Amino acid sequence: MENLEIKNKEILVFALGGLGEVGKNMYCVQYENDIIVIDSGLKFPDEYLMGIDYVLPDYQYLIDNEDKIRALIITHGHEDHIGGIPFLVKQVKIPVIYANGLSLGLIKNKLEERVNFPVNLKEYNENEALVFNNFNISFFRTNHSIPDTFGVRLKTPVGSVVHTGDFKFDFSPTSKDSDYHKMAKIGEEGVSVLLSDSTNAELDGFTISEKVVSQTIRDMFESIEGRIIISTFASNIHRVQQIVEASIQTGRRIAVFGRSMTKNIDVGYKLGYIKAPKGTFIYTRNPRQEITTNKLTILCTGSQGEPMAALTRIAAGIHKQISLKPGDTVILSSSPIPGNQESVNRTINMLYKRGAKVITQSPFADVHASGHGGQNELKLMLKLMRPKYFMPIHGEYRMLKIHAELGEDTGIPKENTFIMGNGDVLAINEKKAYIKGQVQTSDVYVDSESIGEVGSLVIKDRRELSDDGLLSVIITINENNREIECAPNVVSRGFIYTKNFDNMTKDLQEITIKACDKFLDYGKKLNINGIKIEVTRALKAYINKMTKRSPMIMPVIMVL
Amino acid sequence: MENLEIKNKEILVFALGGLGEVGKNMYCVQYENDIIVIDSGLKFPDEYLMGIDYVLPDYQYLIDNEDKIRALIITHGHEDHIGGIPFLVKQVKIPVIYANGLSLGLIKNKLEERVNFPVNLKEYNENEALVFNNFNISFFRTNHSIPDTFGVRLKTPVGSVVHTGDFKFDFSPTSKDSDYHKMAKIGEEGVSVLLSDSTNAELDGFTISEKVVSQTIRDMFESIEGRIIISTFASNIHRVQQIVEASIQTGRRIAVFGRSMTKNIDVGYKLGYIKAPKGTFIYTRNPRQEITTNKLTILCTGSQGEPMAALTRIAAGIHKQISLKPGDTVILSSSPIPGNQESVNRTINMLYKRGAKVITQSPFADVHASGHGGQNELKLMLKLMRPKYFMPIHGEYRMLKIHAELGEDTGIPKENTFIMGNGDVLAINEKKAYIKGQVQTSDVYVDSESIGEVGSLVIKDRRELSDDGLLSVIITINENNREIECAPNVVSRGFIYTKNFDNMTKDLQEITIKACDKFLDYGKKLNINGIKIEVTRALKAYINKMTKRSPMIMPVIMVL
Repeated sequence: MENLEIKNKEILVFALGGLGEVGKNMYCVQYENDIIVIDSGLKFPDEYLMGIDYVLPDYQYLIDNEDKIRALIITHGHEDHIGGIPFLVKQVKIPVIYANGLSLGLIKNKLEERVNFPVNLKEYNENEALVFNNFNISFFRTNHSIPDTFGVRLKTPVGSVVHTGDFKFDFSPTSKDSDYHKMAKIGEEGVSVLLSDSTNAELDGFTISEKVVSQTIRDMFESIEGRIIISTFASNIHRVQQIVEASIQTGRRIAVFGRSMTKNIDVGYKLGYIKAPKGTFIYTRNPRQEITTNKLTILCTGSQGEPMAALTRIAAGIHKQISLKPGDTVILSSSPIPGNQESVNRTINMLYKRGAKVITQSPFADVHASGHGGQNELKLMLKLMRPKYFMPIHGEYRMLKIHAELGEDTGIPKENTFIMGNGDVLAINEKKAYIKGQVQTSDVYVDSESIGEVGSLVIKDRRELSDDGLLSVIITINENNREIECAPNVVSRGFIYTKNFDNMTKDLQEITIKACDKFLDYGKKLNINGIKIEVTRALKAYINKMTKRSPMIMPVIMVL
Repeated sequence: MENLEIKNKEILVFALGGLGEVGKNMYCVQYENDIIVIDSGLKFPDEYLMGIDYVLPDYQYLIDNEDKIRALIITHGHEDHIGGIPFLVKQVKIPVIYANGLSLGLIKNKLEERVNFPVNLKEYNENEALVFNNFNISFFRTNHSIPDTFGVRLKTPVGSVVHTGDFKFDFSPTSKDSDYHKMAKIGEEGVSVLLSDSTNAELDGFTISEKVVSQTIRDMFESIEGRIIISTFASNIHRVQQIVEASIQTGRRIAVFGRSMTKNIDVGYKLGYIKAPKGTFIYTRNPRQEITTNKLTILCTGSQGEPMAALTRIAAGIHKQISLKPGDTVILSSSPIPGNQESVNRTINMLYKRGAKVITQSPFADVHASGHGGQNELKLMLKLMRPKYFMPIHGEYRMLKIHAELGEDTGIPKENTFIMGNGDVLAINEKKAYIKGQVQTSDVYVDSESIGEVGSLVIKDRRELSDDGLLSVIITINENNREIECAPNVVSRGFIYTKNFDNMTKDLQEITIKACDKFLDYGKKLNINGIKIEVTRALKAYINKMTKRSPMIMPVIMVL
């Protein structure tokens, strides 16, 4: 990949992650020799990425241009926006990371746990601009499913880039209002290009307000007699506070379960987002102590059906401190993230089986609202910003595409809209905008906390292994007399039942010996690779004929 | 498991599959020494069942009671109701299989392809009763997403069992009407126990009518200029016919792609469900011939994002005969089956990327209707049948539970409702109904067409292999001098990159040798198993410390 040609008076905008996907958001704005990075997220793998914990962007462009990086700006504290930071700072020198409020607290925690050198982390003030050479950076508050979410304007000598962050417009939020007037002012002052959140571009209309959710939860807490077990996204601190308030009002004490929930409530409490009188929370960290309080809210993780989460263990009847009993009500104040529907359903089935009543989100009940604006909210943002150029971000391809169409509806010409992929570089100067080229991007896998030790070849192996298991044959060859010492040892894992496999062993040994035969002539150098290929071929053919299966064949040659 | 005690004048009702799940439906009704089996389905595995093709019920009860089986009755031709037949007839002697219309055609095809001995397959007449000793069996037509779907009434000397099959009430179907009057009459004559489809128990209200779908498709075909690529469930023959008619009316010829679509249209055509003038269909079976006709409907498989299906290959740009071009419209006349949402989304993203317009089901457009009735339809069935006892069937636990609550709403006392699992036996006599006990049930895996060669242990291995791969160490021990011959051979697959692994090889060899050491004393018999356990333990500890991973460890001992 060649390097980008940097022209004077030209803004470059590109994503290292976040386009064509929901996750690992990382956008870069470059003006001449200054780069501002916006967000550094990770992505959770789908089921095809076997054994992978996270996916990160490839940081190569930033490594190559380390000297130009001025700052990393964080829009909000979700994992797909901050989860990559510990990995990034180990690979790239970032002069300063700017974040605000809760995001700052969450990043601080993350760095303390996982980075053992100092990182320059600062708080930005939403009312003050940050200046880095030619960049003047300011912020506007939005509503989202986590407190302290901001959009960013980056002013350069040839125009402004606006990045909305993740947003919805909530006219009755349970948190601070969106800053409508600041957005209007930014629009008035002129926006060259708008980068706007496409997550809910497929959703007609307007998302429901947090106030409706809050009221629904309050009403439910009033009417429910027994214990309430409620699960939500741990980072949705405002929702958590609503649950805390509803509990207090109905005389319930609160027991918190799940690591991320405990951690987020701790941070939220310190920063003043979680307010509760003393004695509201029950001490739950003694795993041998069963919680028997009756007037109780159990606030826990597991809204996505995660195998080890508190709610999942409660549902499976293996939670040490909570046993479900008839009369318990479980509320899922959340929606399944795409891909998690099945595990959430499994949890719900188990909860029902244990006699609990289960309440899930609308259309059944307004116990959850999305943090991403629907079509009318997206249009409102476009109207307020009235950008010259439009770049839908934060979404799979169809979401970007539909968002582009919404842009057209609001009057942005098709030719001024750029549906881009990760690595595509949009260049904007005073005359025009155009795709200038590509920078290097790819998915980088994190497996057991280490980066880059697992790539697509390893994943391919895992996939093959998961399908029909493995058949290994160990052949011991005496190099001196060119003879196979003792019968080849045939072993398998994840293939078929041992009993059925044992019946084939003799055949497999004979086939192996026969396949080796022509490679055992004196005089020539022993062709280990040739033997492996031939043995694999012969065993594959036999196995496929006998069982219609294709296990991975792994021949091992021991030379004595 | 003990055998069931058979009492006189008692009906036994139980499921070998279909309760607590959507799939592998198989219900049994036994009266004294006669058993009637209703449906013989299979289930498609979820992602946890690695490499498994299908899941079947355990047929052991039927094997043990073969002499009592009088007939297998098929309600309709979906795979979760007929897919198990080829496997069943190989294990259990079934004196006669009764099916109707399209189901009969589909079963005939299936048996021809997969069973090489004669099976007694007969057609039932919906207006005539079948009599087997004490059973008098009659049928009532319902609406569903495949033609010729029926409910079944089994009259016995002590009362009637009604099994609804899968159903919805469609007041304006594109097929024959449901037989409301027959259902009403059955209800009037008295129903002891109703077994009713719970699939859409969570769905408020009424499903939309096929007529609405048909009209929507027709309107779209009128207004769309370019080629139309449309995908639906191959078995939804009425939908296919609507698509054929809309094509004819708008002057489009039709190209059919995908094995199951071609097969179902063939069967449907022979049975008169698919009607089209000569020349409507384009010959597509020459894989080298690109289809270039412009006024065209491409009717294909792939509505679930199946990796090898026609639409998926078209979307990926690897279909030999169809290349997408701007102006093409893709209609998904289907809904994603739970678990398939992600693969469907992947297909949609790819289609958008290739410039196609994509239309999916409501809320976006009424291009699909479910074949399973919503809450009001379920209540209507309960009202028509007014059963004494109620047994919700065909659903995951939460669906059964919600269906039970709907039953209560319609006036069925809670104590008369039985939410059961597979194998639970409901006994009904003239006085009461009660759970009598259990018969043997389990999930039986079919992997590469063979049954029972793969069980939960093999699956567990595959899961472990898929997570962190495999590490194998081969140790060659000379039994005579109790020495390890040559360095242990360490190989891995799906673990980490070879390069990173190679750096650990020396350590792994040393650890292996050390672990073997204490087992190599003279005098004792060589404890192969002890060596394996100790080597596994030692390697696991090292690998976990170095990489935080847990590959499957497979030590192989070669004794010379």
